[in-house]
Amino acid sequence: MDSMTLIAVISIFTAGITTGIGTMGPAFSEGRAVATALTSLAQQPDASATITRTLFVGLAMIESTAIYCFVVSMILIFANPFWNHAITLGSGS
Amino acid sequence: MDSMTLIAVISIFTAGITTGIGTMGPAFSEGRAVATALTSLAQQPDASATITRTLFVGLAMIESTAIYCFVVSMILIFANPFWNHAITLGSGS
Amino acid sequence: MDSMTLIAVISIFTAGITTGIGTMGPAFSEGRAVATALTSLAQQPDASATITRTLFVGLAMIESTAIYCFVVSMILIFANPFWNHAITLGSGS
Amino acid sequence: MDSMTLIAVISIFTAGITTGIGTMGPAFSEGRAVATALTSLAQQPDASATITRTLFVGLAMIESTAIYCFVVSMILIFANPFWNHAITLGSGS
Amino acid sequence: MDSMTLIAVISIFTAGITTGIGTMGPAFSEGRAVATALTSLAQQPDASATITRTLFVGLAMIESTAIYCFVVSMILIFANPFWNHAITLGSGS
Amino acid sequence: MDSMTLIAVISIFTAGITTGIGTMGPAFSEGRAVATALTSLAQQPDASATITRTLFVGLAMIESTAIYCFVVSMILIFANPFWNHAITLGSGS
Amino acid sequence: MDSMTLIAVISIFTAGITTGIGTMGPAFSEGRAVATALTSLAQQPDASATITRTLFVGLAMIESTAIYCFVVSMILIFANPFWNHAITLGSGS
Amino acid sequence: MDSMTLIAVISIFTAGITTGIGTMGPAFSEGRAVATALTSLAQQPDASATITRTLFVGLAMIESTAIYCFVVSMILIFANPFWNHAITLGSGS
Amino acid sequence: MDSMTLIAVISIFTAGITTGIGTMGPAFSEGRAVATALTSLAQQPDASATITRTLFVGLAMIESTAIYCFVVSMILIFANPFWNHAITLGSGS
Amino acid sequence: MDSMTLIAVISIFTAGITTGIGTMGPAFSEGRAVATALTSLAQQPDASATITRTLFVGLAMIESTAIYCFVVSMILIFANPFWNHAITLGSGS
Amino acid sequence: MDSMTLIAVISIFTAGITTGIGTMGPAFSEGRAVATALTSLAQQPDASATITRTLFVGLAMIESTAIYCFVVSMILIFANPFWNHAITLGSGS
Amino acid sequence: MDSMTLIAVISIFTAGITTGIGTMGPAFSEGRAVATALTSLAQQPDASATITRTLFVGLAMIESTAIYCFVVSMILIFANPFWNHAITLGSGS
Amino acid sequence: MDSMTLIAVISIFTAGITTGIGTMGPAFSEGRAVATALTSLAQQPDASATITRTLFVGLAMIESTAIYCFVVSMILIFANPFWNHAITLGSGS
Amino acid sequence: MDSMTLIAVISIFTAGITTGIGTMGPAFSEGRAVATALTSLAQQPDASATITRTLFVGLAMIESTAIYCFVVSMILIFANPFWNHAITLGSGS
Repeated sequence: MDSMTLIAVISIFTAGITTGIGTMGPAFSEGRAVATALTSLAQQPDASATITRTLFVGLAMIESTAIYCFVVSMILIFANPFWNHAITLGSGS
Repeated sequence: MDSMTLIAVISIFTAGITTGIGTMGPAFSEGRAVATALTSLAQQPDASATITRTLFVGLAMIESTAIYCFVVSMILIFANPFWNHAITLGSGS
Repeated sequence: MDSMTLIAVISIFTAGITTGIGTMGPAFSEGRAVATALTSLAQQPDASATITRTLFVGLAMIESTAIYCFVVSMILIFANPFWNHAITLGSGS
Repeated sequence: MDSMTLIAVISIFTAGITTGIGTMGPAFSEGRAVATALTSLAQQPDASATITRTLFVGLAMIESTAIYCFVVSMILIFANPFWNHAITLGSGS
Repeated sequence: MDSMTLIAVISIFTAGITTGIGTMGPAFSEGRAVATALTSLAQQPDASATITRTLFVGLAMIESTAIYCFVVSMILIFANPFWNHAITLGSGS
Repeated sequence: MDSMTLIAVISIFTAGITTGIGTMGPAFSEGRAVATALTSLAQQPDASATITRTLFVGLAMIESTAIYCFVVSMILIFANPFWNHAITLGSGS
Repeated sequence: MDSMTLIAVISIFTAGITTGIGTMGPAFSEGRAVATALTSLAQQPDASATITRTLFVGLAMIESTAIYCFVVSMILIFANPFWNHAITLGSGS
Repeated sequence: MDSMTLIAVISIFTAGITTGIGTMGPAFSEGRAVATALTSLAQQPDASATITRTLFVGLAMIESTAIYCFVVSMILIFANPFWNHAITLGSGS
Repeated sequence: MDSMTLIAVISIFTAGITTGIGTMGPAFSEGRAVATALTSLAQQPDASATITRTLFVGLAMIESTAIYCFVVSMILIFANPFWNHAITLGSGS
Repeated sequence: MDSMTLIAVISIFTAGITTGIGTMGPAFSEGRAVATALTSLAQQPDASATITRTLFVGLAMIESTAIYCFVVSMILIFANPFWNHAITLGSGS
Repeated sequence: MDSMTLIAVISIFTAGITTGIGTMGPAFSEGRAVATALTSLAQQPDASATITRTLFVGLAMIESTAIYCFVVSMILIFANPFWNHAITLGSGS
Repeated sequence: MDSMTLIAVISIFTAGITTGIGTMGPAFSEGRAVATALTSLAQQPDASATITRTLFVGLAMIESTAIYCFVVSMILIFANPFWNHAITLGSGS
Repeated sequence: MDSMTLIAVISIFTAGITTGIGTMGPAFSEGRAVATALTSLAQQPDASATITRTLFVGLAMIESTAIYCFVVSMILIFANPFWNHAITLGSGS
Repeated sequence: MDSMTLIAVISIFTAGITTGIGTMGPAFSEGRAVATALTSLAQQPDASATITRTLFVGLAMIESTAIYCFVVSMILIFANPFWNHAITLGSGS
């Protein structure tokens, strides 16, 4: 098994695992935040403006960690410096 | 085992695992959000409009993490740059 | 072990695992949503229309993640591009 | 170990595991839904019609995920395209 | 290790594991359903007819997932198409 | 290691594991059911007839899953078709 | 490593594991049942006859699953058909 | 590594593991039963006779599962039929 | 690696693991029993005699399972029949 | 497999795992903090200024741990001293 | 790798693991007992003498299981009969 | 695989894992501390000065453990004495 | 790999693991004890002397288990009898 | 792979793991202690002096276990006796 194949294989595997595992935390957290927002709305309908605004800021913060994982996956698939280096080596030789 | 086979194998495996594991988090979270929405509706039927709207926004956010995983799986199966590179190499030589 | 066998083996295994693991999350979530719906109905029978409608929308969202997994399994079994490529190679040579 | 044996082995193993693991989620969920239905019936006997109807709809949704797993197992045992392809190859050669 | 032995070995192992693991979910769920039924009976003895009927329907649904696993085990032991194919091959040659 | 030894080894191992793991679920469930029955009896002594009857029906249902596992173990030890086939082959040759 | 040694080894290991793991479930369950019985006795001393009787029936049911495991272990150690077959083969040859 | 050594090794390992793991369940259960007994005594000092008697019967039942494990360990160390068979073979030859 | 070394190695490892794992259960249980005793004493200081006596009986029962593990470890280190047999063989030859 | 390939492979894998696992903790924590903030807002709408300010400070602290992981991943992909050393060695020789 | 090295290695590893794992249980239990003692003291300051005495007796019992593990570790490091036997063999030859 | 490559590989892997795992604890703890601070603020707005000050001291203590991990990672990447020793050896020879 | 290296390697690894794992239990327990002490102080400020004294005694007991682990680590690093024996052998020969 | 490389590798790995795992316990515990302190402050603002002092003593005790792990890591990286011995051997020869 040559070097390029190995780099391709590990990039594919890591990209999938990073997104697959890394989105579990944000998904749970957003579910929790949304669930609590609904409970709070039912308990204090008058504060719906503050609750909704805080919820959206929080969801954006949490979504950011999911995006970190997605970005790492995309970098590994489409902008992988190790893969580019290997291709350069391969085509140059 | 030649390079193309190995890339195909790892792409198939990763695609399945990414979707299989990555949809667990969103599924749990949506179940939690829906469950809390139902509890809130039963507790405060008058706020059903706000609750339903917040629920749908939240479900969309959570579903987005499931879609990240599904997108990575689809990219690995149908638009895999490493596989395309290997086919190009194979047909060119 | 030749390439086609290996691709077949990993496709079979991944298809089973993806569905087997990936349906656990939706199953739990639907059970939770249904359970909460029943509790809410018992607590607030007058809001049964809103509760039932929200429950069905939620179940559809959750079922969608189970269907993602099932779709990936079916793609791997019946519309696997890597397998088709291998067959094309095999029959062409 | 020839190709057909390997495909047979992995099909048998995957079929068993898919059903064995994949029915845990639905089983738990149905137990939860039934348990909550019983609690709700004890709490609000007058709403038994609505509760029972919602319970049956929910059980059907949950059972569907168990059936996905069972269908994948049955496909792997009795309608496995990779196995059929291998038999065709074997008998044709 | 010849092919038939391997198929026999994996069939035996899978049959045991499928039943061993696959009955845990239904067992827990039935225990939960029965436990809740007993609690409900103690809380609302007048609704015992409805509770008992709903309990039996629910137990039947849950038992069905255990039976899926048992059926797969029995198929693998006594009606295994891969094994039959291997015997046919073995006796024919 | 010849075929018969391997089949014997895997049969012994699977028989033990199936019973060892498979009886955990029923044991927990029966403990839960009995515990709830005792709580219910203490709470509503007048309904002891209904509670006891429901308990026994439930225990029978749960015990059935334990018996599935025990049956599979006994089949693997004393009525194993693969072992019988191997003995037939061995004595016939 | 000859066949008899391997069968002996796996029988010893399986016998220990089956009893070691398989008695955990019953032990927990009996602890739970006894604990609930004590709580119920403290709460409703007048129903001690019914509680004690139900407890003993329940303990017998739970103990039965522990006995299944112990029986399988004893069969594997003292009445193992595969071992007997191997001894018969060994002494006959 | 000859047969006797292997049997000795696996007997030692299994004996330790069986006791090490198998006493966890009873230990937890006895702790639970004793803890509940103490709570019940504090709540209903008048029923101390019944509580103590039920506790001792329950502890005896739970201890029995720990003794099953200890018995299997002792059998494997001091009355192991496979080891005795191996010694007989060794001394006879 | 000769037989005596292997037996020594596995005895050392098993002795440590048996005590290391096997004392976790009793330790937790004793902590639970003591904690409940303290709660009970704070709640019902008048029943301190009964509580203390029941606590000590219970601690003795729980400690017995820890002692089972310790005994097995000591037997494996200082009175190991397999080791003695190996030494006898070694010195006799 | 030469040294540069191995360093590339392990860098890719570690970068993905570090981000994938390391963002789970912050994601959960932010979900918890946001959820509690919403509950607090619903309970004490008058303190919304203090609550929001404390929430943002807390989210920044928690996000910092996620950024540690992301920074390590980026260093491993784009500023890896070991990789640079290997390239220097490779181009210099 | 000669016998003495192997025995030394496994003794070192087992000694560390036994203490490392075996002190977790007692540590948790002592934390629990101390925590409950503090709660009880706050709830019933008048019974501080009985509570403190019972706490110390309980801590001594729990500490005993930690000491079992520490003793086994020390025996394995400083009074290991297998190591002594190996040294005797080594120096005598 | 030469020594320098191996040291580089293990340094990369350990640096990532240490940060990835080691920031989970602090992240959870900070989430918990912030969440409790928000609850406390909502419950006792008058003590906001003391609560905020204690929160910040606590967050600093918790953050310190995250920084320990980050420092170890940075030392392993940029100030690794083993790597420096290897480079010195390599350039000197 | 010679004997001294192997002993050094396993000593390093075990020393780290023993401290790394073995301090988790005490850390959790001390956190629990301190947390309960704070709750008790808030609930019963008058008993602060007794609570603080009991807390310190308890912390000392719990810290002792952490110190056991640290002592074992230090012994393995700085006073390892197996390492000393190996050095003596090495320098003597 | 020579001895020095192996010792370096295992030292790097162990140092990272010890800090990475070993700081989880203290981090959780400090989070718990801080959280409880905040709850206590909100509940009993008058006892803030005692609560803060007890909190700081407790945090110092808990931090000590984190420092044990950090110290072991630093010893393994910068004052490793096995590494020094190996260097002495290497430079002396």
